[in-house]
Amino acid sequence: MALIVQKYGGTSVGSTERIRAVAEKVKRCHDHGDQVVVVVSAMSGATNRLVSLAKEIAPHPSAREMDVLLSTGEQVTISLLSIALQQLGVEARSYTGGQVHIRTDNAHSKARIVDIDGRRVRTDLDAGRIVVVAGFQGTDQDGNITTLGRGGSDTTAVAMAAALRADECQIFTDVNGVYTTDPRVEPNARKLDRITFEEMLELASSGSKVLQIRAVEFAGKYSVPLRVLSSFEEGEGTLITLEDKDVEKAKIAGIAFSRDEAKLTIRGVPDHPGVAYQILGPIGEANIEVDMIVQNIGKDETTDFTFTVHRNDLPQALEILQKTAKDLGAREVEADDKIVKIALVGVGMRSHAAIASNMFKALSKEQINIQMISTSEIKISVIVDEKYLELGVRTLHEAFDLNRIETQA
Amino acid sequence: MALIVQKYGGTSVGSTERIRAVAEKVKRCHDHGDQVVVVVSAMSGATNRLVSLAKEIAPHPSAREMDVLLSTGEQVTISLLSIALQQLGVEARSYTGGQVHIRTDNAHSKARIVDIDGRRVRTDLDAGRIVVVAGFQGTDQDGNITTLGRGGSDTTAVAMAAALRADECQIFTDVNGVYTTDPRVEPNARKLDRITFEEMLELASSGSKVLQIRAVEFAGKYSVPLRVLSSFEEGEGTLITLEDKDVEKAKIAGIAFSRDEAKLTIRGVPDHPGVAYQILGPIGEANIEVDMIVQNIGKDETTDFTFTVHRNDLPQALEILQKTAKDLGAREVEADDKIVKIALVGVGMRSHAAIASNMFKALSKEQINIQMISTSEIKISVIVDEKYLELGVRTLHEAFDLNRIETQA
Repeated sequence: MALIVQKYGGTSVGSTERIRAVAEKVKRCHDHGDQVVVVVSAMSGATNRLVSLAKEIAPHPSAREMDVLLSTGEQVTISLLSIALQQLGVEARSYTGGQVHIRTDNAHSKARIVDIDGRRVRTDLDAGRIVVVAGFQGTDQDGNITTLGRGGSDTTAVAMAAALRADECQIFTDVNGVYTTDPRVEPNARKLDRITFEEMLELASSGSKVLQIRAVEFAGKYSVPLRVLSSFEEGEGTLITLEDKDVEKAKIAGIAFSRDEAKLTIRGVPDHPGVAYQILGPIGEANIEVDMIVQNIGKDETTDFTFTVHRNDLPQALEILQKTAKDLGAREVEADDKIVKIALVGVGMRSHAAIASNMFKALSKEQINIQMISTSEIKISVIVDEKYLELGVRTLHEAFDLNRIETQA
Repeated sequence: MALIVQKYGGTSVGSTERIRAVAEKVKRCHDHGDQVVVVVSAMSGATNRLVSLAKEIAPHPSAREMDVLLSTGEQVTISLLSIALQQLGVEARSYTGGQVHIRTDNAHSKARIVDIDGRRVRTDLDAGRIVVVAGFQGTDQDGNITTLGRGGSDTTAVAMAAALRADECQIFTDVNGVYTTDPRVEPNARKLDRITFEEMLELASSGSKVLQIRAVEFAGKYSVPLRVLSSFEEGEGTLITLEDKDVEKAKIAGIAFSRDEAKLTIRGVPDHPGVAYQILGPIGEANIEVDMIVQNIGKDETTDFTFTVHRNDLPQALEILQKTAKDLGAREVEADDKIVKIALVGVGMRSHAAIASNMFKALSKEQINIQMISTSEIKISVIVDEKYLELGVRTLHEAFDLNRIETQA
């Protein structure tokens, strides 16, 4: 008997018909003798409908009240799924985040899980019940309702699996696994059977939408085996686990990309210690995340400083940077949102120094100009003009032998 | 500075436009220097939409899960109203029933409030905030979400007012107060400025839909001054309070009526002690409420026994009674759902014995046959053929000087 946490996203529970189908799927797992906790998102469309209502009243509704509002979306799903399970003759019980003590910090709309008390869930599981938990939500120490932000239901599922020491956390999505890259961009993309947490983390942070980055971090931190599967078709999906020996063979796991990038450059900044902090401090204070950072030595004891942010944050970041530029006596500020990020990811990269140069060679062969480069132990990211996105991804996919035909046998 | 609890029903918050209008109303009260707690229902239509979703999945969804589902309706309203208040520049904070510790028993879908801990609300009020609380819901001692059943938001408001020792509990509805009778039946019906809890209770239990009976009971028990007002027009509404001396002048407060009645008669029952229990016991066990009861001495040591039930319960009650009749060897069973109840209500009645005979005289003058009579300290109810409803109400309204023209100066 295994303890499985399953998570179904908004599309999987997008109608009462689909909720019934999910109930069948959950019941099969339970019939098989496993203990099952199900984490669900709001029905697709529900969140948007609630956001529209709020926006009819105020252009910038407060984060606390938005959390109260949006958390009703998952609450509807947990009750409907429990009703569907009961209709199939299985005992089931629904809980909101607060009810199973998913304790978070008080950062409304992007709260982080601090603690989960799994006792109540365990009691139900031991009594043979299926437990249905609302994803995406919790309560802070004062009992205020919080939400975890986009993709938070994945995090809830992983955190719940960690708290219960589950044998596996299964994330059901509309894709049947993790691919070497997005099949819509590269039709030869291949489904991976296994991938390491680190690789998945880099893929997720570089734009792969299959799993939320925080969920993968959490799973890695607590060594929760994570599996990505399709809600709609059968299959083993992709298992995300700790590094295993076989991974050596495949140098590169996949290619991630992101269209949500924007680049900001501040030129002619006096080059003295602490200038990076003076530039990025106000950006961080405004809760804008900075991704890649490059500083070039300029002329006349000044420096040029470039960084990327999420495209949505560009207007605000630009406004802040213009103020900073004035304060620092910088020469000028430039913004560019016509860029994309492409990243090569793989734990095998560690021991293969030649990968970076092969990457740059492949891109240059296609006349793709690299604007920024950033590397980590298992990832190399480049910023290029957005018009090169498809060409860049396909070029690298082929250059690193990732095509559907199994070349690594 | 007074502490006011205001309650707005589903129609009053039926759209974002109306929610904004409610926010304006609440703000005016707050601007006036009062501390305000607002209790709201689900937006009209929301509950039906949720019920339909559940019914698409199961014909008889479990009460526990329905409570989880339906309680989201009020949760949406509290957040939207808080957002609307904040948009007007007022500090406001929303709470679900569970968050402000509205503790109930565990009778899902018809729970009763056991306790309210008003401390959290007080802290917010003392900080100058408006507190918006979800009506109709609470949590049981295990933290399960419960709902109070139909009209529960009124009860929440009154219970909250009692817990906070509020100066007044204002129930905003789609009528501008309590009338001597339903103005749709008697156009001369007059709005009452004041009425006692007892009278209001009798009016409510005799079919006046303005307030839920449990809310009035609660208000009476804890001496919470209750005011019924219109959400849509200005005015003082009707204040429901403890008996005051002036009430003596008006013998009769109003005339209630109910079309939801049905009459059952069992004839030729052997007349021995305990027969009433044998007849009504099985009805009570089936959770059918019995209203009026009349027993006539029959001939040949048998008796005839008549009682009324809610019209919706007639088929079930009839089936039970037919079985009882067989068991008791009764002669026959009759059912009649073409009846209505008309009731004269007033605390002044206590000291005026002539009222009953005046009532019967007025009805007989119009050839209205009285089928059953039941009296309490402050109410006289009669059952008549439903075709006499309007004529009966108007006749009594005039006979007891209740017409719009102020005759009691």
